[in-house]
Amino acid sequence: MSLIKLRERNVVIFMNNNKIRVAIAGYGNLGKGIESQISKNPDMELICIFTRRDPASLSIKSSVPVVNISNMADWKDKIDIVFLCGGSATDLPTQGPAFASMFNTICSFDTHAKAFDYSKDMQAASEKGDTIAMTSIGWDPGLFSLMRLLIKSVLPSSTVYSFWGEGVSQGHSDAIRRIDGVKDARQYTIPVKESMDRIRNGETPEFSKRQMHTRLCYVVAEEGADKEKIEREIKNFPNYFDEYDTTVNFISEEDLKANHSGLPHGGTVIGVGETSKGIKQLIEFSLDLDSNPEFTASVMLAYGRATYRMWKNGERGYKNFSDVPPKYLSPMTDEDIIKNIL
Amino acid sequence: MSLIKLRERNVVIFMNNNKIRVAIAGYGNLGKGIESQISKNPDMELICIFTRRDPASLSIKSSVPVVNISNMADWKDKIDIVFLCGGSATDLPTQGPAFASMFNTICSFDTHAKAFDYSKDMQAASEKGDTIAMTSIGWDPGLFSLMRLLIKSVLPSSTVYSFWGEGVSQGHSDAIRRIDGVKDARQYTIPVKESMDRIRNGETPEFSKRQMHTRLCYVVAEEGADKEKIEREIKNFPNYFDEYDTTVNFISEEDLKANHSGLPHGGTVIGVGETSKGIKQLIEFSLDLDSNPEFTASVMLAYGRATYRMWKNGERGYKNFSDVPPKYLSPMTDEDIIKNIL
Repeated sequence: MSLIKLRERNVVIFMNNNKIRVAIAGYGNLGKGIESQISKNPDMELICIFTRRDPASLSIKSSVPVVNISNMADWKDKIDIVFLCGGSATDLPTQGPAFASMFNTICSFDTHAKAFDYSKDMQAASEKGDTIAMTSIGWDPGLFSLMRLLIKSVLPSSTVYSFWGEGVSQGHSDAIRRIDGVKDARQYTIPVKESMDRIRNGETPEFSKRQMHTRLCYVVAEEGADKEKIEREIKNFPNYFDEYDTTVNFISEEDLKANHSGLPHGGTVIGVGETSKGIKQLIEFSLDLDSNPEFTASVMLAYGRATYRMWKNGERGYKNFSDVPPKYLSPMTDEDIIKNIL
Repeated sequence: MSLIKLRERNVVIFMNNNKIRVAIAGYGNLGKGIESQISKNPDMELICIFTRRDPASLSIKSSVPVVNISNMADWKDKIDIVFLCGGSATDLPTQGPAFASMFNTICSFDTHAKAFDYSKDMQAASEKGDTIAMTSIGWDPGLFSLMRLLIKSVLPSSTVYSFWGEGVSQGHSDAIRRIDGVKDARQYTIPVKESMDRIRNGETPEFSKRQMHTRLCYVVAEEGADKEKIEREIKNFPNYFDEYDTTVNFISEEDLKANHSGLPHGGTVIGVGETSKGIKQLIEFSLDLDSNPEFTASVMLAYGRATYRMWKNGERGYKNFSDVPPKYLSPMTDEDIIKNIL
């Protein structure tokens, strides 16, 4: 069947069940988040879950097929959009282009330094697949990027700051776990309130890393480990900790499980600019999230809806948050938006 | 000269000076705000100011022609976008369609109840003019509308609240001035912090008007006026004050001029939703503005840039914030956005 025929058939299927047919690739925290949040979006329907692992080894909550990634081509005409839930370091650089050459995709690629190279790879893959590949969707990058662009557009002479936390940084927790004698660890990134308040008062200082965030670590040590040595190694850990004020608390494994097993996060983007001499304008956006993966999944689902609509409108290729007219994020009609949101 | 020829000529002019050619219609607080903020946007150039008044009676800051509104047709091929700065009550309902039938327009129409009817009028006018008519641009409606849509899209089961202030409400100040014995007045709308904090703690109550805002009035009484009677009349003023806790302070004319002549404003949109049982996600957006008109003007200028670009891309007709891909708000290139904002 030709591609155009497939397209036509797709359109008929869309009409029939009126739902956006969704797949998840990768069943970690984020993939599980997408699975749990689809029900909040009645215009979407989960079709299958792709995994690199043996499908039989996966125990999922939904009653949909689990498919090995190597068989993705079999699902080409059955899915409108794939949510890529692999990691940015090793999964997405290969999985992203592979999926984008067959399906519309959304991912939360968050390695800022490689975002431009990745955009080129995804552009090439989406050209091949006649698809849209939307990347770096979530809250940072994603919503925070939107706020940074909005603030700089509205207040061209403004200074914009991004603060993260209070919340768990997986990367910093992993870094601690790599230290000898550490059994488990959880690291909270905490914004420095005094610095945020200085900006809120209209100041625009250049902050050091130390002035913007502190790091709070809960560490479970192996029995008999040298705790002083562990603490010293954490505090001197290059890039991750040495440029910050770091507090290390040793706790029991039970305490860590009981009190630090969630993945809360959040953060704040603040911009301040003068529109005329002495006239300050302040814009602030903040998130306080009980579950980072469930929220990231929620953002991706809204942008997934947008991607599908843009694809139906004939748009193709690499996209990010800045390409998306906000109305496509919502299932509301244009008239509803004017009457209820404007 | 045919319309197409004019268009072609426009394109050449754009190429030549590379700037978006801007006009202002109406020279009140907002028009003056646009005039003062254009310099912050080096890709824009003020061409003329339209007024209903005798042009000779207007003393403006810029060295551009002042043109009576009745001569707008003479400027048809010289302007890329007109910023409509008249009031929503009486100016925009007639001026909006008149301008939109000849020029791309941006306005801050803010009568929520009439926004849909106005959109129909602007659609008809922009069809006639082959233009884009973008309405309700500013911070509320405008940025706050964007936040409400974003929150409802990302957290479909969320409850979203809009708070205004602390800031001056022109409408409420005017209402007080209509009371017998009142020489001048300034009304501040103040959000109830306790109610905001309840939402921030994850509660989603149904608030009465009284629970969301209080009203603080500074009143200059005529000599010999009955102050008790004035205070009673303000507090019982239907719709404007009777449903709120209102404080009335009588002050001297000098005090009012010295301490209450600015137009600060601001507000907060907060949304809270559960993504799973007990897992709360909070999104908050707030503005703290020293000058309401200068900030509104700044937002309109960014959306003016977007409107012009969308028009160049072939889009036409009625638009609002929800139609605008964020990248069009910024003078940055796509590559700059990926490298510096994402």
